[in-house]
Amino acid sequence: MGDLLRPLRLDIFPETGFIGPEQATQVTGRHLSDMRGMYQDGRAAEAMTAAGDPLLYQVYNADIPDEPPHILFGTTVVYPGKVGSEYFMTKGHYHAIERTAEVYYCLKGRGMILMETRAGDVAVQHLERGKAVYIPPGWAHRSVNVGSEEFVFFFAYPGGAGHDYEAFEGLGFRNVVVDREGRAVVVANPRFA
Amino acid sequence: MGDLLRPLRLDIFPETGFIGPEQATQVTGRHLSDMRGMYQDGRAAEAMTAAGDPLLYQVYNADIPDEPPHILFGTTVVYPGKVGSEYFMTKGHYHAIERTAEVYYCLKGRGMILMETRAGDVAVQHLERGKAVYIPPGWAHRSVNVGSEEFVFFFAYPGGAGHDYEAFEGLGFRNVVVDREGRAVVVANPRFA
Repeated sequence: MGDLLRPLRLDIFPETGFIGPEQATQVTGRHLSDMRGMYQDGRAAEAMTAAGDPLLYQVYNADIPDEPPHILFGTTVVYPGKVGSEYFMTKGHYHAIERTAEVYYCLKGRGMILMETRAGDVAVQHLERGKAVYIPPGWAHRSVNVGSEEFVFFFAYPGGAGHDYEAFEGLGFRNVVVDREGRAVVVANPRFA
Repeated sequence: MGDLLRPLRLDIFPETGFIGPEQATQVTGRHLSDMRGMYQDGRAAEAMTAAGDPLLYQVYNADIPDEPPHILFGTTVVYPGKVGSEYFMTKGHYHAIERTAEVYYCLKGRGMILMETRAGDVAVQHLERGKAVYIPPGWAHRSVNVGSEEFVFFFAYPGGAGHDYEAFEGLGFRNVVVDREGRAVVVANPRFA
């Protein structure tokens, strides 16, 4: 067999996003304190961080070598909640190797995927159970939970693609998703005004 | 935006494997007559082909360019049934570019994934709803429905990977899955004896 990896099976729990077995899974958790400056309402973010620093999302990665020609896969779980009027969301990133794609398949909850390109194009797709979104090469992506339960989706992307969060540490994404009288609305990020 | 493809959303119906919208989906159906010589019981295969040539499986592909750096995804639906004592299955293939991987996530039913390498290594993984299988680079793969309803799974693999069916047109896979008194059993392919 030489250097060939052996096939692998994992159990995915759609209700929680949890993947097993544990020894074949890497877990990354992001708290509000990991996202300083990313929410419009800095005062609300500071207060919530001080009051317990909530867990906003977790990523479960199947333990596969992060290099070509592997495909990495796992689940992302974005918890329900808001910071001010803005919903809990992931940091969002370009792939470090930008000409790489990603596919999502939603297992639970309701979310929006905010996407944009270096050239300033923007796109938004809604996800709910049974829907898939294709993120073509070159599109940054951020996942937002606009529902009242966990937003869980399966993802797959090429090993070695990497993550570039830096582009969004200043102004953020060009769109933000806010609660307007109980409805999730996509609005232009005021910081770009 | 230049040559960047725009993000795409598809609806996947886990009960049937059907993907919509139709204009964004390519469908490939395989009948028993497309699999001449692949079942051990040639007489049973001939009789069933003459008696109506059943549809064994369908593949729904999201309409994404089949080239790097895209990721192709969709669903495979293997229908329940047997040819002699052997369960309905896919043709099975290596990727034409062998050092490419694939991931499956099961949506419905019960199946087995037969895998093997050019060096003669073999592996079998069981799939049912909520379970994922990783097919590492270099492993041929065939999907077998060992249950009584449709076996449906979501798949993702790199654009341009291609399919090489030729390796299995002679002896077939090294393992076959047969019904032994109502139980699905993996046995060595007698043609390799």
